[in-house]
Amino acid sequence: MGDDNIKHQENDNKSVAGISSIIPGWFSEISPMWPGEAHSLKIEKVLFQGKSDYQDVVVFQSSTYGKVLILDGVIQLTERDECAYQEMICHLPLCSIPNPKKVLVIGGGDGGVLREVARHSSVEQIDICEIDKMVVDVSKQFFPDVAVGYDDPRVRLHIGDGVAFVKNAAEGTYDAVIVDSSDPIGPAQELFEKPFFEAIAKALRPGGVVCTQAESIWLHMHIIEDIVANCRQIFKGSVNYAWTSVPTYPSGVIGFMVCSTEGPAVDFKNPVNPIDADDSQSRPLKFYNSEMHSAAFCLPSFAKKVIESKAN
Amino acid sequence: MGDDNIKHQENDNKSVAGISSIIPGWFSEISPMWPGEAHSLKIEKVLFQGKSDYQDVVVFQSSTYGKVLILDGVIQLTERDECAYQEMICHLPLCSIPNPKKVLVIGGGDGGVLREVARHSSVEQIDICEIDKMVVDVSKQFFPDVAVGYDDPRVRLHIGDGVAFVKNAAEGTYDAVIVDSSDPIGPAQELFEKPFFEAIAKALRPGGVVCTQAESIWLHMHIIEDIVANCRQIFKGSVNYAWTSVPTYPSGVIGFMVCSTEGPAVDFKNPVNPIDADDSQSRPLKFYNSEMHSAAFCLPSFAKKVIESKAN
Repeated sequence: MGDDNIKHQENDNKSVAGISSIIPGWFSEISPMWPGEAHSLKIEKVLFQGKSDYQDVVVFQSSTYGKVLILDGVIQLTERDECAYQEMICHLPLCSIPNPKKVLVIGGGDGGVLREVARHSSVEQIDICEIDKMVVDVSKQFFPDVAVGYDDPRVRLHIGDGVAFVKNAAEGTYDAVIVDSSDPIGPAQELFEKPFFEAIAKALRPGGVVCTQAESIWLHMHIIEDIVANCRQIFKGSVNYAWTSVPTYPSGVIGFMVCSTEGPAVDFKNPVNPIDADDSQSRPLKFYNSEMHSAAFCLPSFAKKVIESKAN
Repeated sequence: MGDDNIKHQENDNKSVAGISSIIPGWFSEISPMWPGEAHSLKIEKVLFQGKSDYQDVVVFQSSTYGKVLILDGVIQLTERDECAYQEMICHLPLCSIPNPKKVLVIGGGDGGVLREVARHSSVEQIDICEIDKMVVDVSKQFFPDVAVGYDDPRVRLHIGDGVAFVKNAAEGTYDAVIVDSSDPIGPAQELFEKPFFEAIAKALRPGGVVCTQAESIWLHMHIIEDIVANCRQIFKGSVNYAWTSVPTYPSGVIGFMVCSTEGPAVDFKNPVNPIDADDSQSRPLKFYNSEMHSAAFCLPSFAKKVIESKAN
């Protein structure tokens, strides 16, 4: 963390890169990905501001959402609602197959997905490939309850390009791949494109599963349409869209493409590998349960129509 | 609409009462009900500003959410996402009982709930009691696709106090009561209190159903706890909490208390009176379907725990 690019500083919003301050003391999330609207959080104190090789990185203490991680001006997680995203993106795929052993996480440098994967006792190896080391370092410093995922001895961290990592993986290696990416503007763009999905399909075993961040049905139906069409060509097992509530993401929801490769059939809507009853653990699940799992695949009529029209 | 209180005016935000502008030209929803955060919408043009006997009323054309209705500084509906709220608050109760005939709507002056109730051909009488005539007038003028609900000949509009209206209703009159209220700060406060729920239980027939707006599990768990506890004392059939995604409501979700009185059992999670197949209608459903109906009752673990702890 001794990098020249990194500056700790007091709460002086006007000088904070990556913070579009519309009232002094508030962070406002303004983006061409959701024109005409902005969610704002009140800032108690800016804790970190840096510029990595890939993006602007900001951490602040908010007044009501705990600590907040911002990449290129977009909220990645808040302590108050990160449970919804991390638990769903992880357990939707992993609870849908029996005994997952090898899991690959692309992106997800904050470590929250690792924390969730580690709940699964069948898992023997957790590879993670994150492009931006600053995200890992910042999470370890400011988000211990998220970065705790790195403490698991099964985790192997690779800093580098996720697309290249997946392309270089031996065929049929993984039971599950989880793509915890930012939006398709900036460093994550390739993670929404066909060659990457093809590489994932190859890196998965037959009947292996993938879950990728897939935007909001309220805001990005055109992007989702393209992703669904691509996935239907590439993943020959099953192709599904699921969604969940995350208050600090634009429109209050985030979706996932949840697919499987040809091989043993995977019925994603009916989890075969439940982890509901783990309340004995030191960190009980806050959001996910088997009912929420199945419900996540139920779509509003306007979205269902578009997504199912891509079925052939 | 010739009231002295009503002024039409050009887009000059600084002079618009009820609009908290944090960026010039944007509306920002700031409230003690959700401290530390605000959702903002870009204003194209302010279309209406008035002060009724009960509240500030503002209508503006937003740049990406269509026209927006604001009461006392809080978003009530936008043309882009009103379907989610109106369809769910109406069809969760009405699709759960066979052949609803008499329906009462409390609040809901914009007419959107009426539009949805009117889809049910079994319904013979739709009473609505809205306290604020200005809401009705403004909706008829600016939101024709919402206020269209008033065109149905089965609708009888009563301008007045909803609590008094329900108290005066003859015992056992209604098959269903829908409470489409604003937040429990301001004119709607009593609609969250026990005497009102007791009056509803009396106005319903045995096995009749009620659905009331019941805030956000992410923001208002303490309010919800109280409502659930009250409802368990009063509604002796069944008491349930359901929720749905509405992007322009705080935290991106809104919940409903869905209860029935003692009498023929109502299994809310399994709708017996589906209206999915009405795409032949001139206004097909945009959001609701039977799958969404059942999914709405699945709750995240943190909410389930609190709500179910009120079960005894």
